[in-house]
Parts: sequence; C-alpha cells; structure tokens
Amino acid sequence: MTSSPSSPPSVVLLSGGLDSVTVLAVAAAQGQRVHALSFDYGQRHVVELASAARQAQRFGAVAHETIDLSHLGRLVAPATALVEASTLVVPKGEAPASNIPITYVPARNTLFLSYALAWAETIGARDIWIGVNALDYSGYPDCRPEFITAFERTANLATRVGVEAAQGTTGIVIRTPLLDLHKHEIVALGLSHGIDYADTVSCYDPGGDVNEGPLACGRCDSCGLRKTGFARAGVEDPTRYVVAPPAG
Amino acid sequence: MTSSPSSPPSVVLLSGGLDSVTVLAVAAAQGQRVHALSFDYGQRHVVELASAARQAQRFGAVAHETIDLSHLGRLVAPATALVEASTLVVPKGEAPASNIPITYVPARNTLFLSYALAWAETIGARDIWIGVNALDYSGYPDCRPEFITAFERTANLATRVGVEAAQGTTGIVIRTPLLDLHKHEIVALGLSHGIDYADTVSCYDPGGDVNEGPLACGRCDSCGLRKTGFARAGVEDPTRYVVAPPAG
Repeated sequence: MTSSPSSPPSVVLLSGGLDSVTVLAVAAAQGQRVHALSFDYGQRHVVELASAARQAQRFGAVAHETIDLSHLGRLVAPATALVEASTLVVPKGEAPASNIPITYVPARNTLFLSYALAWAETIGARDIWIGVNALDYSGYPDCRPEFITAFERTANLATRVGVEAAQGTTGIVIRTPLLDLHKHEIVALGLSHGIDYADTVSCYDPGGDVNEGPLACGRCDSCGLRKTGFARAGVEDPTRYVVAPPAG
Repeated sequence: MTSSPSSPPSVVLLSGGLDSVTVLAVAAAQGQRVHALSFDYGQRHVVELASAARQAQRFGAVAHETIDLSHLGRLVAPATALVEASTLVVPKGEAPASNIPITYVPARNTLFLSYALAWAETIGARDIWIGVNALDYSGYPDCRPEFITAFERTANLATRVGVEAAQGTTGIVIRTPLLDLHKHEIVALGLSHGIDYADTVSCYDPGGDVNEGPLACGRCDSCGLRKTGFARAGVEDPTRYVVAPPAG
C-alpha cells in the first residue's frame, strides 16, 4: 500500500535505529503520508541520521526533517553518557543495569514528541508514531506505556487540535506498534515489510569511518538487545561489528 | 532574599515579557538559584530576548541559556502569525477572539517545558517556573491549569527524577504563581519586587529599531491585556508605543 494525496498525514519519529525504522515501515504500509522527524542532539551515534535519511526515502516519506538540537546535547551532557559532549562512558560488556542506565538522556522522548506534536498540528496530522518498546528495552522511563498515555493526554490539552477534539473531532493519537513486542518479534515484523536492517544503527557508541560506514561496538546494552533479537528471530544478524559477536 | 550555593536550583522560563519577568522576580525573592531559559524561535518580537537577558542579570540568575529554536519557527510558520517566517498577520485593533487566536503557536509551551525539564533534571532542580495565566490571557490552550497538571504528571513519568520521586523523594513541580491572578495583580506583584516593566516586551509585533529599543504596537491582543493591567493597577504604563494609547 502506498500513500496518495488523500491519505492521512502522520508524523513518524525516526532515529535511524532498528525500532524506529520498523515503525516507519509499518506506518508506510498503512498508507499514511509519512512526515519523518529526526534529531541531531550531539549523540555519539550520529551516523544513525544518515540511515534515517536513506530509510525515509526508501519507504516513501513525503517529508523528512532533521532538527538541530546540538544545544540539548550540551545542556544535558553532565547527566548522560550518550552525547559526544559528555565525559561519562557508555558501559560495555556489563550486565544490563537494574536501574535506569547512564545512557538515559533527560527528557529526550518528551522533547522529541513535543516537536512531533508541533509539526503534526501544523500539517493537520493526528497520528504521531514512535518506536518505544517496554519489553526488550534499555529501561528508560520515557519508553513506558504510562508515559505515552500521559503525553497523549497532555498533547490534547496543549493544542488547538486537542481543544477541537474535545468538541467531537479526532485528537492526537500516539501510535506505538512496538510497545508490547519482543525484539525478535520486531525484527520479524520489519523483515515482513522488506526492511534492510544492515542500514540501521542501534549501537550507542559506534566506531568505523565515513567511507566504510558504522561499526557497532557489539557490547553496549543496545547492541546486546539487537543481537539477541536477530538470534531469537532465527535470522542472520546483518550488523557490522568492531569485534565479532560471540558464537551462538 | 538572595540565593546562596545551598539554595535549591530551579529553572525559570523567561521570555522577557511582563509575566515571565514577574515570575523570575518571585522565584529570586524566594531565594532560588535561578537558571533562566529563553528561546529564539523566530518570533516577531525577538527583541524580548534582550530584555530577558537584562532581567536575568538584574535578578541574579546564576545561569541564563537562550536556545536556538529557529527551525521550530519554520516548521510551524503555516499555522501561526507569531513567527517572522509566517505570511499570516497579527490581528490588531479587533475584539479579542472568542476562540484560539491565530497567534497561538503549536505546542509551544509543551516544547518550552520539555527543555526546562531536561535542564532541571541535569542540574538537580525540582521546580520549573512558568508565567502562565488563565484569567487575562490570550486564550492559548497551553496556558490552562489542566494542561499544566497534565504536563507535570508526564514529566514525572518521563524522567529519572520522577521515578525516584515515586520512591519517596520530591519530583518535578511546575510552579505557576500567576495562574489565578488578573493582569493588574501581576503588575502590582512585580512592582512590589522592584521590576522595571519598561524593560519588558509584551507586544506580538513591535516596531522600533535596535538603537531606540522596541516600540509596542498598542493594538494586538497582548498590548491590550498589558494596557488594561497597568490601568487597573492604577500605575503609569511605562511601555513605549508606536501609537499613543487611548486616553483613560
């Protein structure tokens, strides 16, 4: 199914990672006129944005905006290891943290959804798609279903579209097709939509160079979840790693 | 009362307008270590940011960040008259709209509060101050108390500080000291804290030049509310207008 001028517009938060690219494919398959939205916030894995651009094109997004949030990276650098400006180190080869890990970025999804909301209201979209997942995830509080529910409520109180919805029209809906899926189910879903996962970036701290493309570290929490996902899905992991993944 | 290194840090959203400068003065008077946060989103009244910087210094803010959100202005330009990039016109000399006016900016306060939240969590602040007002206001949905309540709830679900609060510590609190005040009460409150309102900008579409400083149009909704506030407070209106305000 492809979108047409009469298809409903929607906003898709697109990092360029495995989850958000899967969401992009699902939204496109439903015939939505996808407006993809990415952010450069000084993340260590900024190479994901090149994948985001290629995937947006591949799945027929009618628009793709990449917002410069480099100031956010500077503002939150003392509190997260995930941005280049931070002196904190991305944990590798450790058991996943039982608490919120140091790669958590303060208020990141709240901010991303707020931008998506501004754009959605401007273009007349009702649906905002986001690839949060509450099963095989890093433990970030802003990936939990209760956060999504609260944000959706806030969005409808914050906006003209929300006020009009209270009078009977459709309000803002946060679409989370991955929320209750395990990583291997996400992989299977994406493969059914023809995703080339080799061109997605999950690693929090990739190496590699511009010409060769990114090399995943294979040892951070995100690489761990991704590896397990491919293994349990029973498909070959197309990711290029700095170190070879453990056998099995 | 002045802040000391042991005072609690807080974030104050500071546009440079009458309301937010009053909030700044109130927060400072309570001895908070104020981190003031302003945004350049391509607003027509960008001269307010110079006032914001001077007022932050005057009231002893320990930090003042002005975030470049010019991309937001471009993104929402089709839907709001308030940004330079828009071809829509700021209404003047009309009765205030009964519905949400065309100067409403999609998701603006959601976005501003999200930034404030990111900074608050990073610096260990619990209080975020915002000058919303639900009596003498422009009718924007994101100034209503139900929006503030919903955002506060979202903020505590989104963040590490919120998760810890669920375990007994203090969570994020959105402080709205002006919420239930009429404009003339806000003026009186600010004057009691020594605010020089001549150096605040409320006008949505000011004229003037860089050397002479801004000239308020005197006819937009925001100028109307401000004029009435000074008149009802029984104090001289220090605002410089392009056209003289009507007598009385």
